Amino acid sequence: MKYEYLTNEDLDIAVESYIAALKSEGLAPKTEKVPVFEAAGRITANAIYAHICAPHYNASAMDGIALMANKTFGATETTPVRLKATDFIQVDTGDPMPKDTDCVVMIEDVVRDGEDVLLYSAAVPWQHVRQVGEDVCAGDMILPSFTKIAPAALGAMLAGGVLEVEVVKPPVVGIIPTGDEIVSPCTNPKPGDIIEFNSTIFSGILREWGAEPKTYPIVKDIKEDIIATMKKAVTECDAVIINAGSSAGRDDYSSLAVSTVGTMLYHGIAIKPGKPAILGYAKDKPILGVPGYPVSGIIVLEQILRPVVEIMTGRNLHVQDQIEATLGRIMTSPLKYREFVRVRIGLNENGDFVATPLNRGAGVVTSFVKADGIVDIPQDCEGYEAGDKVKVTLLRPREELLNTLTIIGSHDPLIDEITDILKRENPDSVVSSSHVGSMGAIMAIKRREAQMGAIHLLNEETGEYNTAYVNKYFPDGGVVLEKGVKRIQGLMIAKGNPKGIESFKDVARSDISYVNRQKGSGTRILCDFLIKKNGLSASDIYGYEREEFTHTSVAAQIASGTADVGLGIYSAAKTYDLDFIPICNEEYDLLIDEKAYDTDKIKDFLKVLHSEELKERLNALGGYETWD
Amino acid sequence: MKYEYLTNEDLDIAVESYIAALKSEGLAPKTEKVPVFEAAGRITANAIYAHICAPHYNASAMDGIALMANKTFGATETTPVRLKATDFIQVDTGDPMPKDTDCVVMIEDVVRDGEDVLLYSAAVPWQHVRQVGEDVCAGDMILPSFTKIAPAALGAMLAGGVLEVEVVKPPVVGIIPTGDEIVSPCTNPKPGDIIEFNSTIFSGILREWGAEPKTYPIVKDIKEDIIATMKKAVTECDAVIINAGSSAGRDDYSSLAVSTVGTMLYHGIAIKPGKPAILGYAKDKPILGVPGYPVSGIIVLEQILRPVVEIMTGRNLHVQDQIEATLGRIMTSPLKYREFVRVRIGLNENGDFVATPLNRGAGVVTSFVKADGIVDIPQDCEGYEAGDKVKVTLLRPREELLNTLTIIGSHDPLIDEITDILKRENPDSVVSSSHVGSMGAIMAIKRREAQMGAIHLLNEETGEYNTAYVNKYFPDGGVVLEKGVKRIQGLMIAKGNPKGIESFKDVARSDISYVNRQKGSGTRILCDFLIKKNGLSASDIYGYEREEFTHTSVAAQIASGTADVGLGIYSAAKTYDLDFIPICNEEYDLLIDEKAYDTDKIKDFLKVLHSEELKERLNALGGYETWD
Repeated sequence: MKYEYLTNEDLDIAVESYIAALKSEGLAPKTEKVPVFEAAGRITANAIYAHICAPHYNASAMDGIALMANKTFGATETTPVRLKATDFIQVDTGDPMPKDTDCVVMIEDVVRDGEDVLLYSAAVPWQHVRQVGEDVCAGDMILPSFTKIAPAALGAMLAGGVLEVEVVKPPVVGIIPTGDEIVSPCTNPKPGDIIEFNSTIFSGILREWGAEPKTYPIVKDIKEDIIATMKKAVTECDAVIINAGSSAGRDDYSSLAVSTVGTMLYHGIAIKPGKPAILGYAKDKPILGVPGYPVSGIIVLEQILRPVVEIMTGRNLHVQDQIEATLGRIMTSPLKYREFVRVRIGLNENGDFVATPLNRGAGVVTSFVKADGIVDIPQDCEGYEAGDKVKVTLLRPREELLNTLTIIGSHDPLIDEITDILKRENPDSVVSSSHVGSMGAIMAIKRREAQMGAIHLLNEETGEYNTAYVNKYFPDGGVVLEKGVKRIQGLMIAKGNPKGIESFKDVARSDISYVNRQKGSGTRILCDFLIKKNGLSASDIYGYEREEFTHTSVAAQIASGTADVGLGIYSAAKTYDLDFIPICNEEYDLLIDEKAYDTDKIKDFLKVLHSEELKERLNALGGYETWD
Repeated sequence: MKYEYLTNEDLDIAVESYIAALKSEGLAPKTEKVPVFEAAGRITANAIYAHICAPHYNASAMDGIALMANKTFGATETTPVRLKATDFIQVDTGDPMPKDTDCVVMIEDVVRDGEDVLLYSAAVPWQHVRQVGEDVCAGDMILPSFTKIAPAALGAMLAGGVLEVEVVKPPVVGIIPTGDEIVSPCTNPKPGDIIEFNSTIFSGILREWGAEPKTYPIVKDIKEDIIATMKKAVTECDAVIINAGSSAGRDDYSSLAVSTVGTMLYHGIAIKPGKPAILGYAKDKPILGVPGYPVSGIIVLEQILRPVVEIMTGRNLHVQDQIEATLGRIMTSPLKYREFVRVRIGLNENGDFVATPLNRGAGVVTSFVKADGIVDIPQDCEGYEAGDKVKVTLLRPREELLNTLTIIGSHDPLIDEITDILKRENPDSVVSSSHVGSMGAIMAIKRREAQMGAIHLLNEETGEYNTAYVNKYFPDGGVVLEKGVKRIQGLMIAKGNPKGIESFKDVARSDISYVNRQKGSGTRILCDFLIKKNGLSASDIYGYEREEFTHTSVAAQIASGTADVGLGIYSAAKTYDLDFIPICNEEYDLLIDEKAYDTDKIKDFLKVLHSEELKERLNALGGYETWD
């Protein structure tokens, strides 16, 4: 093993000196000429000037007669001017002005008298004429350099006689995936295989930025192969990303390849995630070493590569919308790094933004799918308290967020199915749901961080669901408890029940491995109730501390053979083809902020909840009963 | 001539019943399957569920040893547990958990004792293990229907074993340009030719909306040809736009073609511009008749076609950012129509938005290039007063507007050249300039609608420029007058001076046709001064009322032969290869709001004003002197 010392450079300083180093080598956008009709969305490489005037001729702006205005001078209501047929020419809108005419009199104002016409008022020179250059004049600048060409600008160019335009050529960015364990995407990976999807994510991001990705085949951790691929990529591309292998550890040839093929400026930036980034270059070609975890990789691209791509594309990519939001939970951060935390943005009943931090695991790519924004925590900050105001850089349009129905609480696939049905009926609808358990839902509604919560909370004494909790936590009301569905909870067990589990009591057997749900979830509360009821103790259960956040993830552990049993809903057991012992038919209900109850978002949601389509989908999932 | 009666239907009612009619015919997105690596930016046609768990195996999350946690139970700092080599297996981060192990102890906590190891604390089952499904579980919904696929979502799909995804297929929208005068884009159109650029604008807009344009060759105004092309397009496309010929008048075959090939629902909507729109359909295929003027066409597309394309693409295109802005000038509107007025957005020194209406001519496509937003004036509203607050739907990102330097005032190409240099140095910079003349600049700065004004105002008594006006209109200060450039004003005359013009006095000759500048412009003030000085009167000058807004448009009139002479700057005469008689060397200066003077935007602008690069560009334009 060879460990290399990494730097811990400040991000802004690193990026500034990186760009300075690249610019001193001449980094600049490349350009190409394209026909105007293909140029929409491209970036101008130079200022565009009109070659001809538009309109390019003087045209009648009305149906009427064209003539010299001075022939009408003196005309009044009492002393009309008489014009002979040779004095005027009939014109329609858009017709070129005939020679030796300088105005148009509208057809409505022309009084015919045989071949002659009578005019009862004088014309002003150039009245009702659309003059040369009204829209654009030859020599006028239509667009400055480095400007995105909007569709209307295409029209202005063509009107101005510009048929071809010089635009920025998308820089080609090579992506080199490396690693012995890395395999191409497939549906049946072997244990230990790591599916290579970073190059697909990076390609998508680069295309959004106006660059052209070029992905190389996966390179194994062989020093010579990595260097050879890097040399090839530097020749073929305008910039190169080498993925994985950039943390200081065994088989790390990224930094070696960078310093062999070019110059390494930094290895290690004081950001989290993304610390092991490598900033290097070969002449004016940037080479970036990107950590293997997808979330780290995305952050490194956004924070370090984006400003470089901006220079190479002439685009302005960093102007992003920011909002101020109230933090829903505490968010700690190490003093050693500047941290970028993805958050979900919800709306409370007042329409204020509430930010909830997402899973910060560097490998959890779904947290980026769910993210509405990013909080940038400075290096010298230990984080923020719940209730603090934080600045959030938005990843979705602000207007979309304002349209969002925020649901927080207990996990059930039914929420996703309703979200899907709502989307199919109206693509505008956006539902943001977070799984924080039933007690999390109660607290979120109490703190007014969500409009709706999903709960299934058993009153041990009465056997009733939910009402006792609502009465306890909302003694003054302010919420509506809306009936949801009944669903069967029970024990999920490996197919064929190899260990002969018969009832909850068996989870305490010494040969049984259990998998639990997180504290505060309704299913965890059920588990603790069953422990008490069966006269057991938590310490009797092997795996009681093993916590999962959803029914499907509990089922996944059992299906993978690492646990024998766990509590969950029937549909999850069915999805994973597990055996199931029903325990109770629980009531999964919706707790709604009274102020939000009459909004369209809630009404639409409840309409779908009671719809035939949802009933059909729940039947397919299995284990549900509706109240209708 | 055959005039057809047009309806004047309310826009919202028309669109609603149009969509209802189309939906009753089954209008819905078409779909196609694409590999995930090509799916960035596409719209999901169905909900996407994970096929496998990610991670798909239990992996060590640390470098260390893997073992069964129960073997460590009882270990404390004073009573370590001793493990034999057969009790544990060394693992690195990412390695699959070996069979019969359920936790990892970090290498730092492992004390070696020969072949054995000693552990001084008990492990918890599943500690330091990245469990199956931590990121996504098989069966979980990754994305609902009708959702734009962001790059990170591609990673989540590939991690979840989804290699192919069903997405919305871009609907093919046929565009049929019609008209006898219409010609393909060229650099030397004949008088009367109308350059066909609408199909290029429409194609750009449709691509932005996720549709695929298909433009047909130009069809002459021949009834049979138009109907035949329409029939072909309805067969080949998912929707059809027929351009021009939709106003009720001579040679109007659009509505006939629509009602022959399909059903016409409306002809005539109460909007301005865009009134003669035709809303029709053939089965579930929308057919839209769009007026020929580009601005009318764009408005009809945005107001009528966009909601239809939203249904065909599953996209949400109508969620647009809105701001409130103060209106800079009066904006009247007819009661008969709902009007859409394009505005430029400036920032005053307080950072508040100020909206200035742009040229409303339906043929003026450059007004769309300059537009920052659109004001929607209801049908029953006569418009707004200057100073009123209006809602503006933004066409540019809000953040870009906040970054804008707003310059208002006298026209000079130098402003465009500085804008271009600023863009080349920093693509973030945005300069918004409006030509309202020197007096317009004084008024705009007084009303705090712009940060900078451009003026050249001659004090007739002293021969000095600008200072007297600034002292008069800003007696209490609050502004800084910054020296700009000196530029030569004079008489622009047709090449070779065919009419033998020698001095300003000649403009009053009866054989001379003059072209003037608009009221309030510095050049108009100079004109009036010269009239007085030469003992002339405005009524002596043929064409005194003919007003143009820029130096180039005055030059364009002379170059086109419709005027003999006009006042303007030397560079405009040079661009149009005109003869030039110098009259004065005027001072074109910048009037800056004191509060804005120290901002980076102003500093950057002034830096470029004094730069060598601008000097070179001014030399190339000709007729300028700088103060440096």
